[in-house]
Amino acid sequence: MKQVRIGLLGCGTVGGGFVRLVDSERARIRARYGIDLGIGRILVRNLAKERRGVDRALLTDCAVDVLDDGCDLIVELVGGIHSAGSYVRRAIANGRNVVTANKALLACAGGELFATAAASGVRIGFEASVCGGVPVIGALRRGLAGDSIEELTGILNGTSNYVLSRMEDGLTFADALALAQTNGFAEADPSLDVDGEDAAQKLAILAELAFDTPARKTIVTGIRGVTADDVAKARARGEVVRSIAEARRVAGGVELRVEPRCLPKGHALAAVRDEQNAVIVRGRAVGEIFLSGKGAGSMPTAAAVLADVIELAAAQGLDLRCRNPYCI
Amino acid sequence: MKQVRIGLLGCGTVGGGFVRLVDSERARIRARYGIDLGIGRILVRNLAKERRGVDRALLTDCAVDVLDDGCDLIVELVGGIHSAGSYVRRAIANGRNVVTANKALLACAGGELFATAAASGVRIGFEASVCGGVPVIGALRRGLAGDSIEELTGILNGTSNYVLSRMEDGLTFADALALAQTNGFAEADPSLDVDGEDAAQKLAILAELAFDTPARKTIVTGIRGVTADDVAKARARGEVVRSIAEARRVAGGVELRVEPRCLPKGHALAAVRDEQNAVIVRGRAVGEIFLSGKGAGSMPTAAAVLADVIELAAAQGLDLRCRNPYCI
Repeated sequence: MKQVRIGLLGCGTVGGGFVRLVDSERARIRARYGIDLGIGRILVRNLAKERRGVDRALLTDCAVDVLDDGCDLIVELVGGIHSAGSYVRRAIANGRNVVTANKALLACAGGELFATAAASGVRIGFEASVCGGVPVIGALRRGLAGDSIEELTGILNGTSNYVLSRMEDGLTFADALALAQTNGFAEADPSLDVDGEDAAQKLAILAELAFDTPARKTIVTGIRGVTADDVAKARARGEVVRSIAEARRVAGGVELRVEPRCLPKGHALAAVRDEQNAVIVRGRAVGEIFLSGKGAGSMPTAAAVLADVIELAAAQGLDLRCRNPYCI
Repeated sequence: MKQVRIGLLGCGTVGGGFVRLVDSERARIRARYGIDLGIGRILVRNLAKERRGVDRALLTDCAVDVLDDGCDLIVELVGGIHSAGSYVRRAIANGRNVVTANKALLACAGGELFATAAASGVRIGFEASVCGGVPVIGALRRGLAGDSIEELTGILNGTSNYVLSRMEDGLTFADALALAQTNGFAEADPSLDVDGEDAAQKLAILAELAFDTPARKTIVTGIRGVTADDVAKARARGEVVRSIAEARRVAGGVELRVEPRCLPKGHALAAVRDEQNAVIVRGRAVGEIFLSGKGAGSMPTAAAVLADVIELAAAQGLDLRCRNPYCI
């Protein structure tokens, strides 16, 4: 049985879920893949904080304790750009594969990080960075590899979709946003969500993967200006308002847009409500493929992180062979 | 530039689409993956038949000409169980990776074929065997590998869904089925489709992949008994009739069912119309993931075959490295 020791950076919402998921899935992963996953060290900001299901002996508040500990791979869940970026660079320099859910970091420095990783012979798993548990990165990397992608259209930000869903119920923008915060679907500072920037970061990652030409123009407007009146007027026409992220080939490159749009009720994205995410991938041969599910939250995102950990354990020369005969 | 010569068995609807797709995607695949795909030989039943975009010099009506030709991998698109099975066994014995869209063969002999392939150090790609271009096999193998799957629910047969959609428009079962045949969505003998057997074969493949316990019970009823009256009554209650394939964990194993069911209009599967396919995967951590798209047809299925060819070219020690930096 191969042992895989994971160095975990960050133990917040997703990190805590990841620790619990590794614990609950450990026996299944041993039986199915013949690898025994364990968390080696965990970087946290506050050593004193109570964390359900987390062994306190693994905690440290010093990143180097995790990065230079000899763990087999590094899972980066601290978020943000600066510290996270330096951690990921150090993990790569140490020859470690990295799994990250950090869309801001990849949207800002993905090109550099992937190039450094390739030069160092390591890989970066990032399924969790877009649409949480919905395996859209894997679909673009593998399942749709045989086709030319022409367009990506989606709802990539769960917070703004939750706000628009509550406005459909009659709330004002401010009240809907406050409710999202109360229910844990929005950050204390939700500006990246409602301004469309978070969706634009995720769209940029999908577009890099889908199109082999550079993004030419990015238009982001967000939902901040949408009023309950706009939503009511759309409904009177049998339509709904959604924050749509769209990337498509144009002359000379790829155009990215994030903006609120009215959609007829029969549109697949009109049925996406609350904190759900969805992506429509339009390929020349396959036509439209629709994927949706929980785009955020502790356990869905942790499951995407764990899927990448399993795949990279295979890439790491661990002689991984799935015991399921259909999955060789 | 690595050359990959493909031995193609079958040049009907999907096979012909595959030849055209390899042609149209060849430059993109060279640029992105650094491999040059070419068709080496093609097995056909009728050498005289006119085939658009197919080089006649590659055709043969003798399977051994393809199987023992030294091609790098074999694509099996002849369908059926007996000939196809012996071709796949010979390809495996020759040490060749195999890509197949043949759900009947896998549902009937998958266990044996995967075991033989594993013992011979080769792999079988079968993304195209379920839901055509919708990458549900890849999602179960990789993107959802971190989670325990609890239930699969889907519309896996496009023909019966097309028939039910036309019955919603007021046609009788017989007229709807005749229209499906006229429009090319049904075989001359559509009994496997409308009896639920085709969906049950696909469901068995998904269940083998998702659950590591054997299927215990299979219940198949099909849509043959559904009347226009049943559909009208469902509509009067705000519901629609769909042929639902469902696999779920029960005490002692996994239960498979295929049966017509009434679904409320708000249900995600109620919105799946015509020849579309869809699958809802329910995982303990990720919740419900919904995938849909064209479940059959020449080009969507060919795209799934080509995605497997690209992935297996990598597995074949071809030193495949995607040139897209996000896709290392």
